[in-house]
Amino acid sequence: MQKQFSPSRPCRVEDVPHWDSETDVVIVGFGAAGSCAAIEARRAGAEVTIFEVAAAAGGSAALSGGEVYVGGSGGTSAQRAAGFEDSTEDLFKYLMMAGGPGADEARVRVYAENAEAHFRWLQEQGVPYKGSYLPGKWLEPLTDDTLVWSGSEQAWPFSAAAKPAPRGHTAQHDGWSAGKVLMEKLCGRAEALGAAVHYSSRALTLIVGKGNEVVGLVVRIDGEPRYVRARRGVVLAAGGFIANRDMVARYAPGALTCDTQVSAGNDDGSGIRMGISVGGAAIHMDQFFATVPYFPPESLVKGIFVNQSGSRFINEDAYHGRIAHYVLRQPGGHAWLLVDEGIFGRPMIHRDMTIAAVGESWDEVEQELGMPEGALVHTVEEFNRLALEGRDPYFHKSADWLRPLTKPPFAALSYCKGDLPSHAFTLGGLATRTEGEVLNADGEVIPGLYAAGRCACGLPRWGEGYSSGMSLGDSTFFGRMAGRRAAGR
Amino acid sequence: MQKQFSPSRPCRVEDVPHWDSETDVVIVGFGAAGSCAAIEARRAGAEVTIFEVAAAAGGSAALSGGEVYVGGSGGTSAQRAAGFEDSTEDLFKYLMMAGGPGADEARVRVYAENAEAHFRWLQEQGVPYKGSYLPGKWLEPLTDDTLVWSGSEQAWPFSAAAKPAPRGHTAQHDGWSAGKVLMEKLCGRAEALGAAVHYSSRALTLIVGKGNEVVGLVVRIDGEPRYVRARRGVVLAAGGFIANRDMVARYAPGALTCDTQVSAGNDDGSGIRMGISVGGAAIHMDQFFATVPYFPPESLVKGIFVNQSGSRFINEDAYHGRIAHYVLRQPGGHAWLLVDEGIFGRPMIHRDMTIAAVGESWDEVEQELGMPEGALVHTVEEFNRLALEGRDPYFHKSADWLRPLTKPPFAALSYCKGDLPSHAFTLGGLATRTEGEVLNADGEVIPGLYAAGRCACGLPRWGEGYSSGMSLGDSTFFGRMAGRRAAGR
Repeated sequence: MQKQFSPSRPCRVEDVPHWDSETDVVIVGFGAAGSCAAIEARRAGAEVTIFEVAAAAGGSAALSGGEVYVGGSGGTSAQRAAGFEDSTEDLFKYLMMAGGPGADEARVRVYAENAEAHFRWLQEQGVPYKGSYLPGKWLEPLTDDTLVWSGSEQAWPFSAAAKPAPRGHTAQHDGWSAGKVLMEKLCGRAEALGAAVHYSSRALTLIVGKGNEVVGLVVRIDGEPRYVRARRGVVLAAGGFIANRDMVARYAPGALTCDTQVSAGNDDGSGIRMGISVGGAAIHMDQFFATVPYFPPESLVKGIFVNQSGSRFINEDAYHGRIAHYVLRQPGGHAWLLVDEGIFGRPMIHRDMTIAAVGESWDEVEQELGMPEGALVHTVEEFNRLALEGRDPYFHKSADWLRPLTKPPFAALSYCKGDLPSHAFTLGGLATRTEGEVLNADGEVIPGLYAAGRCACGLPRWGEGYSSGMSLGDSTFFGRMAGRRAAGR
Repeated sequence: MQKQFSPSRPCRVEDVPHWDSETDVVIVGFGAAGSCAAIEARRAGAEVTIFEVAAAAGGSAALSGGEVYVGGSGGTSAQRAAGFEDSTEDLFKYLMMAGGPGADEARVRVYAENAEAHFRWLQEQGVPYKGSYLPGKWLEPLTDDTLVWSGSEQAWPFSAAAKPAPRGHTAQHDGWSAGKVLMEKLCGRAEALGAAVHYSSRALTLIVGKGNEVVGLVVRIDGEPRYVRARRGVVLAAGGFIANRDMVARYAPGALTCDTQVSAGNDDGSGIRMGISVGGAAIHMDQFFATVPYFPPESLVKGIFVNQSGSRFINEDAYHGRIAHYVLRQPGGHAWLLVDEGIFGRPMIHRDMTIAAVGESWDEVEQELGMPEGALVHTVEEFNRLALEGRDPYFHKSADWLRPLTKPPFAALSYCKGDLPSHAFTLGGLATRTEGEVLNADGEVIPGLYAAGRCACGLPRWGEGYSSGMSLGDSTFFGRMAGRRAAGR
């Protein structure tokens, strides 16, 4: 027997026994996309009701580093204060490369042209930015500085295509997880503007009219289904699906080996499934952000990654999430980071990292790893010889990070399957117009349905191109657009 | 204004003005899956009507090599005649590896256990198999032999996991495209059993009842929409989406660089879109078969592929479709096949292959290709040294294909983006039960809707693991199951 409600089976309006409540815009999820959608919908004069499955506001964004990827228009105030000019065209080019072969040019264009204004908007909502720049390579600032390098901007091939600038803007906060500051401000603002928020409220399924238009939502509150009419539309802002292992297996099996979910726990794909249930197209569902957070300390960036053939496979100064995808697909799931005494340090967030081999010579390390005879030694010798000349013609690692690995003892840190500390969240989701309307597989609008954040397939849609701050940049920016659009229907 | 009918907007039964006709089972598409579904549905006593958009039978399968990937149960008659035992467990293991991280164990199991019986069934339908074995490496037999090696069975890592056997069974036919023989027999059989076939008939959209169950199909015949009631169900067997560039861009952007569509032209994804329109989940949509048909002559398998760093990246004796995926993802889209005078020959189906460099020494070739100094020379010297010993500890190429590249002149055949002759079709499609019912994103059955062939996501769902004959094996086998299931509803 099927259970009464399923996100995959919409409720027909004829089957609604009565309306428990009515509003203009229903928003599912009170995280980054949902809060921004609510702010804009309220500002456009719409009545807004938010249903959040958790007992508190903020969604997965509240647990994140809180970075927002913005720039262009000559630079944000923070970029300019730190001496970085950032043209819209450079931001555009970087985002197009980052979007990979499926990049959405229209979406990238509107974002690049408005990202700097979006940063000012975030400030207007009360999000605090100290405006100070923290140089170096970090996962997120552990000081209260608020501008960092958060992607592959300075790394090949991105650096060859677009002038680099740091674009990771984090809310001011000492230590990890500035996302909670960001989300306190955005959620607080949405409530202050009069959005009604219901917590511990699970969206059960969409309600559709005769033309398949979305007219409301069934939501479970206090154990009972409530029928909520949405006069203007429903905005799905319920996150991705990394917490749903069945969906990961079916849609993004490459992420199955990642052991840590970047999620507050409710990224169960129910928002995406509701969209699919009314004919919404879910696209790029195989793509995911992954990271092997192998630094800080940043000295480790001077190490080199090798596979079981003893060959390098990437410029190690690329974004850690790009490196993760290369690591994950090495033959047999085997990869090691080679370091010498001069750069060794335990990775800050995986201090118990497995050290697979140690030796007084690279030959010893090679033997311990069971590689083909001479393979590793040749790779390191060649790397060392060229590093001395400040060159990496093989992988184009920037000279800043080139240093011969000549100081024994030598070691190989394991990034092999099993030892691999890897963190992931999903990037695929519902196809939408730039303005937020959910599209069916023929690219037609499904009336009354909107999506943003990781429910939608937005700006970040290619794991190899992801940079920190792209997901929150996308969620907050396109969340606003979806809220405005729904309110104006 | 929206057009009247779209595969992405189902027609509600209330909006059907009248029924033009009525049958038990409607089948969309008269290719491999559709013909086999029709045969079984007729044998189960159901009235069957097939709508085919083309003016003739056979679909894309009729243009193919007609290989069906079968074995197990100790071996088919053809395998046993050639001296190959083939256990169900070895077939199962190979298919599981071939399915990649998203392999569907239940589906693989039922296929492995019944593949040999399925081969006998194909013979019973009149498909001619000479039963003779053609050794060597071929894309498809150009003689009238009917058993060939059609995958990576003898290549690492597959060979290490499952005992190899040739499993490509082709209909008896002299020259390319034995698929036309296969399809003539299967389609002829379906018609002989009394399936009604309408050609030049475009399926416009599904018709759904109040519970979202599928009750019929709107189809355009002679320019007019016809409303066809399906008492038991609709089987979508309309192929994949390689011929729809919009869908490829949104779902499988990795295939955009492949210049040749493996399709009779109607793989426009309309079947998949109809499934999506009623809430069907489309899975593994990013996956595609690709090939760079770099042999025959098989001597070329003794060459080595290198990337722009002068590094090898795969054992060159793997299936050509697996190699294609590795080639496609090399940095910058650059890859070359290195050959010497002893093995050189023009690839049979791309005789105008670009020769990127020729030299009397590997050093000359290296310079001509602009690789880092010494990189290519080192790779070739290392390969040659180990090949003399019959070993390839780097990529585990089988000793049968190891031979030093020492006979000048030397050459590099270009498999770089732009020069690359690559052929593709899509592997993603609707999620189905093994028996054929289409599933929504919560894994629930959509009543009355079935899918098979490349409309569904079947056995082959990972480009890197594909072997010739898997698509037709899947389409014919699971087409049968879907037809039987729909008839029995």
